[in-house]
Order: sequence, then C-alpha cells, then structure tokens
Amino acid sequence: MITLTDILAARDRLAGQAVLTPLLEVPALNDLAGGRVLLKAEPLQKTGSFKFRGAYNRIAMMTPEERARGVVAFSAGNHAQGVAAAARRFDMAATIVMPSDAPAIKLRNTRRLGAEVVTYDRQRDDREAIAREVQARSGAILIPPYDDEGVMAGQGTIGLEIAGQCAALGLVPDLLACPVGGGGLMAGIATALAVLLPATRLYAVEPEGHDDTARSLAAGKRLANEGAPASICDAILTAIPGQTTFPVLKAHLTGGVAVSDAAVRDAVNLLYDEAKLVVEPGGAVGLAAILSGALPLDGGSAVVVLSGGNIDRAVFAGDIAV
Amino acid sequence: MITLTDILAARDRLAGQAVLTPLLEVPALNDLAGGRVLLKAEPLQKTGSFKFRGAYNRIAMMTPEERARGVVAFSAGNHAQGVAAAARRFDMAATIVMPSDAPAIKLRNTRRLGAEVVTYDRQRDDREAIAREVQARSGAILIPPYDDEGVMAGQGTIGLEIAGQCAALGLVPDLLACPVGGGGLMAGIATALAVLLPATRLYAVEPEGHDDTARSLAAGKRLANEGAPASICDAILTAIPGQTTFPVLKAHLTGGVAVSDAAVRDAVNLLYDEAKLVVEPGGAVGLAAILSGALPLDGGSAVVVLSGGNIDRAVFAGDIAV
Repeated sequence: MITLTDILAARDRLAGQAVLTPLLEVPALNDLAGGRVLLKAEPLQKTGSFKFRGAYNRIAMMTPEERARGVVAFSAGNHAQGVAAAARRFDMAATIVMPSDAPAIKLRNTRRLGAEVVTYDRQRDDREAIAREVQARSGAILIPPYDDEGVMAGQGTIGLEIAGQCAALGLVPDLLACPVGGGGLMAGIATALAVLLPATRLYAVEPEGHDDTARSLAAGKRLANEGAPASICDAILTAIPGQTTFPVLKAHLTGGVAVSDAAVRDAVNLLYDEAKLVVEPGGAVGLAAILSGALPLDGGSAVVVLSGGNIDRAVFAGDIAV
Repeated sequence: MITLTDILAARDRLAGQAVLTPLLEVPALNDLAGGRVLLKAEPLQKTGSFKFRGAYNRIAMMTPEERARGVVAFSAGNHAQGVAAAARRFDMAATIVMPSDAPAIKLRNTRRLGAEVVTYDRQRDDREAIAREVQARSGAILIPPYDDEGVMAGQGTIGLEIAGQCAALGLVPDLLACPVGGGGLMAGIATALAVLLPATRLYAVEPEGHDDTARSLAAGKRLANEGAPASICDAILTAIPGQTTFPVLKAHLTGGVAVSDAAVRDAVNLLYDEAKLVVEPGGAVGLAAILSGALPLDGGSAVVVLSGGNIDRAVFAGDIAV
C-alpha cells in the first residue's frame, strides 16, 4: 500500500504543474446543509478534473527510456484528458482508448491536447484488449485509471492540500465525502488524511445502483454491481472496486453511501447558483450525499471533494438546469 | 484621491471576511488569446461578486453609533448583495432599493441575506429619491455603489491580491482588463497597481454603446452615454463615470475599449466550458475584449478581472448557452 511518503514525493513532482485548488465555503450552502461545507474545487484543476495529478505523477516517475515509448490509457474521459495533458508536458506520444459515446467535451479536449484517440463500442468491444494491442504495437506503457500506486499517490496530493487548508482555518472536519468510481482518488486522499486528519470520518459516495464500493466495504470484500441502471454520473461508473485501491479504502473508510440522479441534479444546479462552479454530475455526488441527508451534518463540518467539471454546456442547459 | 495606504487598511479589515480569490490560468484560453490570460475569479467571492469587499470595508470604517442607524443602498443587484451580506456580519439593518426588473437571483439573494428590499420602476421612479426618503425616515447611512473612498479602497484589495499573485508567478503582466460601470472596482485596482505593477497597462472595458468611460478618458473629462442601447451586461450599465472615481481612472488608465453582446456571450460560454466558472455577462467583458481583438495580446500576458457570477441559471441555459 502507498504511504504518506509517496504522496509527499508526488507533491514535489507536481509543484508548479498542478493547480493548488481552493477550498471554498459558501454561506448559502452551509445554511442548506445545516453545518459547514468546504468545497475542494477540482474542476479548477488542469483539464477540469483531478485526473491530471495522478497521470502526471505516474509519468514523472518513469525513466527517460520508458517515456520514449509513449503511453496508452483507456478512459471514459477525465483520465483521458489527464494523461493527454501530462504526456504533452513531457513531449510524449499518448494514445487514449475512449468509448464512442463519451461526452463530446471529453473527446474533443483529449484530441485537442494532442493525444491520438481510438474509440470503441461500449457494448461490443473490449477496451482493455484494444489498449493491449496498442501496447504490443508501439511498446507504449499503460497508465491505469486507478489501480496503480503512482496514480493513487498523485491523487493523494489533494489530501495534503485539504489538510493544509483545514489547518489554516483552524478546523478539523467531522467528515469528508468523496466521489468513488474505481477508488483511486479516495485511496490517495484517505492515505494522506489517515495520518494528517485521523479524526475525520471518510465516506465514499456513489450513484444508486453503482454502489459496489459501499457494499464491498460493508461486506469486507470486493463485490461487483449487477444489472446497474443508467446514471447521469458518467465519470464514476465502475463495476467493481479496484484490486489495489480497495484494501486502502477498507483500511481507512468509515463507509459508503449512494445518491439518486435527482439529488445529483440538484447538487449540480446549486453549485452553479451558489458556488459559481461548473461541476459534472459524477463530481457532485459528495454534495448530493450531504444535502439529501445520506450524510447528515447535524451542525458539524464536512469537506466535499468536487472531482471534476467536464459537462457539456448543451447537456447542462438542456437536461440539468431546467 | 485614495492611496495604497487606504487599501492596505481595507485589507486588514477584510482579513478573514473576504475570500482571497484565486488567479486562474487555463491553457485552452491561452491558446485562443495568443498569450497568457490570468483570470481573477471574483465570482468565487462572498455574494458572487467583488462588491462585498467595498461594502464591508465601508461599514467597518463606521463608528458603533453610525452602525446603529443602519445602512441603505440602491443597486441593480451585486452591490445590493454585497451591502446586505456586510450589514449582516455587523448585525445591522439594511434597506436596499432595487429595480423591479433586476435579475431574479439578485433580488432573491438580497432578501435571503436579511435586507429589506424596496423595488422601484426603472422608467418611472427616482431611486436616489427613494433612498433619501429611507435615510430621512430611519437615519440610515447611504453606502454608494462606487463614488465613495471607503468602497473604492475595499475593491482595491483585489489589486493587492493580483500584485501578490503575479509576483508568486514571477510575472509582470503587460495589461489588465477590467469591467467598468461606475468605476469603483477599476479605481481601487488602479490605485494599487499604479504603485505595485507600474509597467502594466490598465484598460477599462464596457459594453458597446455604454462606453462613457472610454470616451471620457479620451476626452479628458466626464461624458455621458446618450441613447444607449439594450445590453446583456446588466451589472455595468451606468450613464456617466463617477465624480470620485473618474479622476483616479484618468490618472492611471491607458484607455478603454467596448465589446459587443455577441463577444460577451462567447466569453461567458468559454468560461463555462474551459475555466469551469460561472460568470455573468457584465463580469466577462474583460475576456471578451481580449478574445475579440479589442485588446490584442500579441504573445504577451494579461490579467482579466472577472467581477461577478450572478446570472440566473435559466437565463444562461435559455439565452446564453444555446
């Protein structure tokens, strides 16, 4: 398992590259939540999500010989953009395997960042097989979206920042709510906060029907989703917790909760209205958990990780904001 | 005229009250602008605009006896919310005179902040007469939206922050572009930057047909708009530069430029897509000036002040994002 030392090393690598995102407090959201809500605003990160941190850290750990081979990744979008942007910083080739129905903004931005995008059919094709084929052809190194210690340590720099920002406020938050798909973000943050804010309860938040992590934490072993429904939270739909991430979550988390699409929609709109932040549905589940009562504050305080903001403007205007 | 000393005193009063808003850089906007663009993100300020700074500073300068009388202000919206929030911090009564057709979000938020809102008809009523009536009745002290040294000094704290944030980046920006209505924000920032970043050219940006400041700067004296057209930039539509603000602008600015509603619309959408920030039309004119070519970067660098983010979600979804 990664340690705080790995995350401190990641912070050194990311210095001057990643944005130290603000921890924002909005009185109107506090009033609605019945406590203090501190928003860690990763939509303001490079590429519009936290994924740049892990991808950059992983590539920075490579030898020059490894970097010369290029990288490959599969992703529905945010990891794609993170890897593409990080590879561009190192002047490397990047191939990204993306579902053909990924949000248009994510496909467009990944291409714009100079990556070669290979699309596949979510129903018909095996994205891992396609990525392996690219590897075999070019020798490119795979950057996994979450099951990788370098990636997890990069995401963990968010935990360091949260601890520092809370200390500056003189605050020990009662809980932290974080979106969980494969669990890389939560594993990195939990590793840092288990040391730096040990009294803060850590919760995974997932969409209803995609609560594999919550159920796995309750069962003490990795369980998959079965017959999972459609969800607007495209960024965090994974079938089963990661092999490398789950033991970390199991060691440090209090538990997991699930939220409905309706609660997520409300949270995205409130973040627009009150925090002036663009947050994608998968990035807003933490706030949805608090405002829907799944994680009640009872006058206490919470850090809410807003993980990304890559939502098509037309989708927001047409489907969410109405 | 106010001095840097007044602004430093305002910073001390605002410490722990106002948000030190981030100065954000987005690679995609740099590419479009052909240079470096640094966004000073005042939508992330308390009440969603810079106005809280000036209002809080002005009230903090009052004696306890003055505060007991309460405050009154007239405003189309952002100053209203700033005064209401600042008054609430001091547990004071606040009466705000607002046009009945102000954006719904601004009316709602001002009431929610505990202020008494008195509406008037823009065509028929004299808002200053209504405010004077409130003053005569209650003894409340008027907080002007811009023509006031305490208000200007509060807005000037943005200039201090910009100078510090640019120094941390090792950057002396070639220019600064700032929305101008009555000129309080620009006057405060210009007072700070004339000392702290004297090589940076300062530009006022206004909506087309509302470019009283640009024309006044060119003429060397205050000129009013005549027959000004409708504009989506509700926050910065004023008829003539302020009496107290204009001498400051005249002393420090290089000039002023005007932008079309179409250019502003593009800027608001780009800020949504690329910066993940909600910015209202009047708050986005600085970016519109750069991207429309009114203020070309030519490979240089600019600080763009984004002054506020109080746009109705329904207006954005229905009129801007489409």
